[in-house]
Amino acid sequence: MKTKSISSESNAIIKHIKSLRLRKQRTKNRQFVIEGVRITEECLKHGGRIEYVVYNKGLHNVQGGANLLNRLSKRGYAIYEVPGPLFNKIATTENPQGIMAVVNMKNITLEDLKLKDDKGLFFVILDRVQDPGNMGTIIRTSESANIDAIIITGGSVDPYNDKVLRATMGAIFYLPVIQYKDDRWMEHLREKGVKLIASDLDTDKTYIDIDYSGNIGIIIGNEANGIDKKILCNVDEKVIIPILGNIESLNAAIAAGILIYKAVEKRNLEKN
Amino acid sequence: MKTKSISSESNAIIKHIKSLRLRKQRTKNRQFVIEGVRITEECLKHGGRIEYVVYNKGLHNVQGGANLLNRLSKRGYAIYEVPGPLFNKIATTENPQGIMAVVNMKNITLEDLKLKDDKGLFFVILDRVQDPGNMGTIIRTSESANIDAIIITGGSVDPYNDKVLRATMGAIFYLPVIQYKDDRWMEHLREKGVKLIASDLDTDKTYIDIDYSGNIGIIIGNEANGIDKKILCNVDEKVIIPILGNIESLNAAIAAGILIYKAVEKRNLEKN
Repeated sequence: MKTKSISSESNAIIKHIKSLRLRKQRTKNRQFVIEGVRITEECLKHGGRIEYVVYNKGLHNVQGGANLLNRLSKRGYAIYEVPGPLFNKIATTENPQGIMAVVNMKNITLEDLKLKDDKGLFFVILDRVQDPGNMGTIIRTSESANIDAIIITGGSVDPYNDKVLRATMGAIFYLPVIQYKDDRWMEHLREKGVKLIASDLDTDKTYIDIDYSGNIGIIIGNEANGIDKKILCNVDEKVIIPILGNIESLNAAIAAGILIYKAVEKRNLEKN
Repeated sequence: MKTKSISSESNAIIKHIKSLRLRKQRTKNRQFVIEGVRITEECLKHGGRIEYVVYNKGLHNVQGGANLLNRLSKRGYAIYEVPGPLFNKIATTENPQGIMAVVNMKNITLEDLKLKDDKGLFFVILDRVQDPGNMGTIIRTSESANIDAIIITGGSVDPYNDKVLRATMGAIFYLPVIQYKDDRWMEHLREKGVKLIASDLDTDKTYIDIDYSGNIGIIIGNEANGIDKKILCNVDEKVIIPILGNIESLNAAIAAGILIYKAVEKRNLEKN
C-alpha cells in the first residue's frame, strides 16, 4: 500500500482538513470531511467522491479498519498517514477511529433530476431546520422513502456538518441535496408543477385528508418557529398532525417522518 | 421569598443532587433532577412532584427566571440559593440557567391505569432503546398520541437521564412510565388482553395492513439489534415499514412515530 506520511501541523493537507470545519470553506470548496469506519464504508459503497484519505495506525485496532484501508488503497485514492496526537487534534469525534476522508459534494440542480417512476417528483423542503440530528434523520427518512431531492433553505444548519452526516447513516451519499440561499426554490418548484404541502397548527385539515399524488413537496419548518410566514401563505395545502395529549408540538423529524410515510403509503403502498 | 443559602460542597443537599447523577441512586430514591427554566416550568404546569429547588442569582438574568422563582416560592417549595461556581459544578448542562429541582417519580403500575376512553388501552414498549434522544422523542410522541403508558424493558437507557428528560419536552410529567427489569411485562400485558405489535424486517405484512383497535402495545427495539428474539416470537403481529431507498433501516424514533400515528389514525382520526 502506497501512503505518504505527514507529521507537521502546518502541512497543506492538515490545514485543508481544518479549514473544512468551517461551513464557509465547505461551501466555497464544495467539499466536506467524513470521520470513522462506518461512514467511510458507506461513502465507498454508495459512490461518494473521495478526494483523499487520512488515517493513523490506530485504525488497525478498529473492527473493519484494516480491510477498509486496503479497499481504499486498491481504488487508488491518495492516502496520508498522520501520527495519533495530530490526528486527534484535527478530528471532531470524541474517540476518533483513525480514519477520515475529504469528499467532494455532488453538483446537482433541480434541472438534473430525472423522474424515477411514473408517480411524479417527490421533494422534502427543510425551512431553517436547526438541529443537526433532526436534519440528518430527515435526510435518512427521505432516502428511505426514495424521494427525488431534499431542498434546504437559507438559515438551515449545514447538511455537511459532521453531526448531520452521521445522522444520515449514509443517505447523504445517495440523496441529492439542493441548497438555496433565497426563496427562489418556490418559483423553481412551481415551474415543475409541484404541489407544496406544509404542516401547520392553524388548519382543520389533517394530514390524512389530502391527496399526495403527482409532483409534491413536503415542507418541514424550524424547530421553534415553524415554517416562515412568507412560505406558508404560498403553499397549496396546510395540514395538521393532531396532538391528542398534553404537549405543544411534535419533534420536527417525527412530524417529517409521519408526513413522508403518509405520502409513501398513498403513492406506493395502497392497493387499489 | 424565603430561601436558605448553601455555600459548602459538603452540604447534604449538594451531595444529594450529585448522587442523583447516578442511575442507581435515582432508582433507589425514586427521584431525579431537572435543570433549566423550561423543564421546571413544565414540571410546575404538569403537576410534577417537586421535592426542593436549587438556584443561583444568575437565574434573574434568564428570561422567565425571576417569574419562575416567584411561582415556586408561592407554592411553598423549599428553595436553596447556591453560589455560581458551586451551581455550575453540580449542573450537567453546558450553560446552566441557574435553576434545578429534585423531583419525585410517580409510582404507577399497570394496575393503576384507568381506561381513558372506549377505544381500549394503548401502550408503547421500548425494548433496550439506548439513545437518550430517541427515548425522549418517543416519550414525547407517545404523549402526543395520548397513549396510556410507556413500558421500558431492562437494558434500556434510564428515562430519568437528563438528556431523555430534555427531549421529552415535558411529556415525562404526564405520561406514566413503567420500568421492568425482567420480561414479566409480557405476562402482565397478556393478562390485560393487549395485542402486541412489533416492527420487524422479516415479514411481508406492512404496518398499514393490520388492525390497531382494542388493547394494543407497539414494541420498539434497540437501535442496532432490533427487538429481542424472545419477545419477537411471542408477539401477535409483526409488521414491516417498507424501505424504498438505499438505507438499511429507519431511526428508532421515526419508526415509532410512524407506527404510533398509524394507530392514532385508525383509532381516532378515521371517519367511519
